[in-house]
Amino acid sequence: MSESRVVIAVDMMGGDHAPSAMLDGVAEALGRFGDAYGYLLAGPREEVARGLVERKVDPSDPRLELVEAPQSVGMDEHPVKAIREKPRSSIVVAMDMVKAGRAGGVFSAGNTGAAVGAAFLKWRMLEGLSRPGIATVLPGEKGPWVLMDSGATVDCTPMMLAHFAVMGDLYARQALGLSAPRVGLLSNGTEEGKGNRQVQEAYSLIQRIPGIHFLGNVEGHDLFRGKVDVVVCDGFVGNIVLKTSEQLSKSLSGMIRESVMQRFFWKMGALLCKGAFREVKRRTDASEVGGAPLLGVKGCCVIGHGNFQGHGVANGIRAVGELIRTRMNERIVEAVHQYALDSLN
Amino acid sequence: MSESRVVIAVDMMGGDHAPSAMLDGVAEALGRFGDAYGYLLAGPREEVARGLVERKVDPSDPRLELVEAPQSVGMDEHPVKAIREKPRSSIVVAMDMVKAGRAGGVFSAGNTGAAVGAAFLKWRMLEGLSRPGIATVLPGEKGPWVLMDSGATVDCTPMMLAHFAVMGDLYARQALGLSAPRVGLLSNGTEEGKGNRQVQEAYSLIQRIPGIHFLGNVEGHDLFRGKVDVVVCDGFVGNIVLKTSEQLSKSLSGMIRESVMQRFFWKMGALLCKGAFREVKRRTDASEVGGAPLLGVKGCCVIGHGNFQGHGVANGIRAVGELIRTRMNERIVEAVHQYALDSLN
Repeated sequence: MSESRVVIAVDMMGGDHAPSAMLDGVAEALGRFGDAYGYLLAGPREEVARGLVERKVDPSDPRLELVEAPQSVGMDEHPVKAIREKPRSSIVVAMDMVKAGRAGGVFSAGNTGAAVGAAFLKWRMLEGLSRPGIATVLPGEKGPWVLMDSGATVDCTPMMLAHFAVMGDLYARQALGLSAPRVGLLSNGTEEGKGNRQVQEAYSLIQRIPGIHFLGNVEGHDLFRGKVDVVVCDGFVGNIVLKTSEQLSKSLSGMIRESVMQRFFWKMGALLCKGAFREVKRRTDASEVGGAPLLGVKGCCVIGHGNFQGHGVANGIRAVGELIRTRMNERIVEAVHQYALDSLN
Repeated sequence: MSESRVVIAVDMMGGDHAPSAMLDGVAEALGRFGDAYGYLLAGPREEVARGLVERKVDPSDPRLELVEAPQSVGMDEHPVKAIREKPRSSIVVAMDMVKAGRAGGVFSAGNTGAAVGAAFLKWRMLEGLSRPGIATVLPGEKGPWVLMDSGATVDCTPMMLAHFAVMGDLYARQALGLSAPRVGLLSNGTEEGKGNRQVQEAYSLIQRIPGIHFLGNVEGHDLFRGKVDVVVCDGFVGNIVLKTSEQLSKSLSGMIRESVMQRFFWKMGALLCKGAFREVKRRTDASEVGGAPLLGVKGCCVIGHGNFQGHGVANGIRAVGELIRTRMNERIVEAVHQYALDSLN
């Protein structure tokens, strides 16, 4: 494989539609991104090769390398247990490729906990950081925003929240193209002094970080309406916010659909404006972003939504490439060092 | 005032549309509920009397009593500070009426923190409980469900979460008419062992409570789709879930509206099926429930949404009446005593 190419390891067996969505994604990526990337495909070699041929992709394409990984981690498996018991699973093998210096990063649409656990155990943390966070881009009335952490670290110290603020800020600059993202600390009210103990202490830490446009506390009402670009919270709260929002969108769509079916005229009207709904769906489609980076670890990893199809996977591959190209991890280490967060304590 | 009537103190100056929404609400309640309730109206006496006359209500109606409360607490005031500095505010005076035995409960659509703080300080906790929780009824695909605590107690011990499970269960029986509500503990995944430290410990406590249909952990994806009737969480998480959900509904409506306006046909279609949207809005309207009870304190208090108009206020008055009529507080004390939660530790 050429040395100049950015090489991305793909977890071929992770996700609800694996491996077909991953194969579709790799095929799309080969066409869309030309020579920009090389791909290490971690999965059962024969099955992957067969799938590539079915998609009219030559498995001996110089940009591709198939790496044998006969095991896979299911979406509902216990992450740490699975990593320990399945050292040859596609996600673990993909992480190993980065550790061995053969790839620059990993894309996985599989079990989030397994990806987080494997990255944390295999790669370890960047200097100055103690726990990773997932930065998820979510749609909003006035454009996308970043939720950080959306599920990697459940129990957070105030310092971890401060680190999430630094990493979320850098990621919003890169992914959303903002020059001074507005960073807010998620709390149960906007006034200073609101929040649980961790949030109250994190407030005073983040407040003292130079170079971050800190709004102070933000509350649930501030999300989705364009008041804040980076929302900082622990992975427990972030996971709940993310999943609740996903489900509420679905439930509301379901209730509207059900309601519309009650009368003939409503049904006709809904048919007429179907395109408008499709437009909103497109605007809020997670697969356009390509997944959420796991930040803080020594390596680049993007975690896609389990339900991604090929297009989402190709976008996820590009997202890993962008993290590598923009040297995100070096910038994180620089920022943490420069802000000397540890000395704030 | 007749002794047989259930007497409800109304915070006439709390809420975005006070006092006019409260005056409208009292006028509606007088008509709808006949002789069932008596009303202690806490507010500036002259202003309240004038408002009643404007609504063709006789201020000397035997069901009414006007109680002077010249001060009011604003929606954005610091709760504890406001309570201390404004002992003659309408919310504090309303709470005092219950403490003095002159009313059985309070309705307020004002500053939630002030209502919680005043109830906690003036009424104190029921025997066996240490912190109050707010039980908010939210709409879902398959009917309403209860979020407990939605914002009263930010830092919770596992035991407080267990108490919320007991109170949420009893409230769902009363308010939703369920014989065995399914109670879930909100976490970042459904497997046992998921959750932050408090949640993990609360799991093992709630699991051992007899008489509660405990589902174990529920996650964000389980809310709004009818999988669980009572969702237990601390007030920090609950407040964020509640406000995020409110805002996301608004933002999605806004995005649909904006999208629909882009093309003539879409606009026409939306006009045709407008009724279907109104139907969904009605199904998800908080004012039908009349507000959320503050449970755990020695007295009955229902907190309405700040934006309630008269109809919501009248429903809130009825909700207080129902708490009193069904002896909710006695049943909470009985349950906490019966389950001997303290001995579980």
